[in-house]
Amino acid sequence: MTTQTDLNSLLLARYGADAPSLPEVAEDPALALLLNHRSVRAYTPQPVPRQALEMMIAAAQSASTSSNLQTWSVVAVEDPAAKERLSRLGGDQRHIRECPLYLVWLADLARLEAVGERRNRPRDGLDYLELLLVGAMDAALASQNAAVAAEAQGLGVVYIGGMRDRPEEVAAELGLPPRTVAVFGMCVGYPDPARPTSIKPRLPIDAVLHRERYDTAAQDEPVDRYVATMAEFYKSQQMKTNGDWAEHSLHRVRGPEALRGRDRLAEALKARGFLAR
Amino acid sequence: MTTQTDLNSLLLARYGADAPSLPEVAEDPALALLLNHRSVRAYTPQPVPRQALEMMIAAAQSASTSSNLQTWSVVAVEDPAAKERLSRLGGDQRHIRECPLYLVWLADLARLEAVGERRNRPRDGLDYLELLLVGAMDAALASQNAAVAAEAQGLGVVYIGGMRDRPEEVAAELGLPPRTVAVFGMCVGYPDPARPTSIKPRLPIDAVLHRERYDTAAQDEPVDRYVATMAEFYKSQQMKTNGDWAEHSLHRVRGPEALRGRDRLAEALKARGFLAR
Repeated sequence: MTTQTDLNSLLLARYGADAPSLPEVAEDPALALLLNHRSVRAYTPQPVPRQALEMMIAAAQSASTSSNLQTWSVVAVEDPAAKERLSRLGGDQRHIRECPLYLVWLADLARLEAVGERRNRPRDGLDYLELLLVGAMDAALASQNAAVAAEAQGLGVVYIGGMRDRPEEVAAELGLPPRTVAVFGMCVGYPDPARPTSIKPRLPIDAVLHRERYDTAAQDEPVDRYVATMAEFYKSQQMKTNGDWAEHSLHRVRGPEALRGRDRLAEALKARGFLAR
Repeated sequence: MTTQTDLNSLLLARYGADAPSLPEVAEDPALALLLNHRSVRAYTPQPVPRQALEMMIAAAQSASTSSNLQTWSVVAVEDPAAKERLSRLGGDQRHIRECPLYLVWLADLARLEAVGERRNRPRDGLDYLELLLVGAMDAALASQNAAVAAEAQGLGVVYIGGMRDRPEEVAAELGLPPRTVAVFGMCVGYPDPARPTSIKPRLPIDAVLHRERYDTAAQDEPVDRYVATMAEFYKSQQMKTNGDWAEHSLHRVRGPEALRGRDRLAEALKARGFLAR
């Protein structure tokens, strides 16, 4: 991956004309790493060394976790046949098949369930939406540290929401016990230098950062600027989209038929042992 | 914050006797930063510079976001009276009052709602659990990058789950529109060197990392080792807990009465415009 370290250049790539100018911020390799993120879907065949994976997991575990409950786990899949099956369960995405290492991140209440069973203690709190959210957010915090640690080691990653399309089948494939569910996947591998990817622009900072109170009215204008920035980006990348960013995004949330099976996620989660109350 | 850069020493602090030995991993400031995380609840009075906050948000926005929908926002609170009120809404935690900067992270579907309204397009997908999870996990990914960026700039943070205790009142305090909810808070400030904190041990890697398939039976033994590691840690920190890690954790999920109001989170989220179908 290119190691660009000038923070203001990275901010320019991220925000275009809306880039904040941060003259007082010193060069910093960790900040540069964070700003330099882009999703990588094309890899060399080189396997991910065990130590690189363990460093990703150590970083993941170093993230905060609600009340130190550590309600997440991860399954590392390298078997080509299993990746092929998971690819079909996740919207037939080719990079799931092609990445050397595929991680499936779980909201995992089964560990506390097992501890409770061994100690013969009640654990009815696990049945509530709160604990599903804790598990999903714990997994997200952990995975983001893992992603950063991967990139620090020269690897590239892409998140896979498609693991929520058919949760019961993913669970069967991975032998998941009740009270666990795959909340997303992550392809990991060394980026193919022949197929580089670009930093994707994001909403202007003033669209997502509110001061003291939420300001709904102040968002329309930065959103409009972003639609224009993204139109330029789609053009420069020769990307085909369903209209501009607003249309494209609304297309994804237009109704249950756009959710690729995830309109029945609550039902699937109940079948996985969540949300019993 | 101490800048310890030897990765194997940091792994030892994180895992105790269960630390993996990673001899081939080179020194790396970004990896050291990730492993060095500890929650900071005591700050100097020094305010957080605007540029440091904007760098945190730029890092947050550089994280992956599901389908580039960017379904999160953050409210930065510095007003002492508002922090006082939010502290009371979040379990009366003193560090919410005392931190110079308090961030409230939101799952935010209101932006897409507003875009849909302006374009006169359907957005019924927003009504499903899937989009609540996307918003909560997007907020978590973003916040974790912000946490790392904070620490890269010498700041310390602690996450605050207490923002989910009374979501409607937090929403009223921050003027949140429908289809937004605070999923957690984050105290930010320069760590008080007179009140340092330690790296908290986590479960052994083999308890959370599964190879190819989930292995329930393999967890009991590493969990037992962790209970012993944590007993040592509680002792060394003179921390009072509800029994060992297993008992302490089970106490938090023993039933609805332990959830501090979050047993009614589904109801609160419906009132905030989520989960309509």
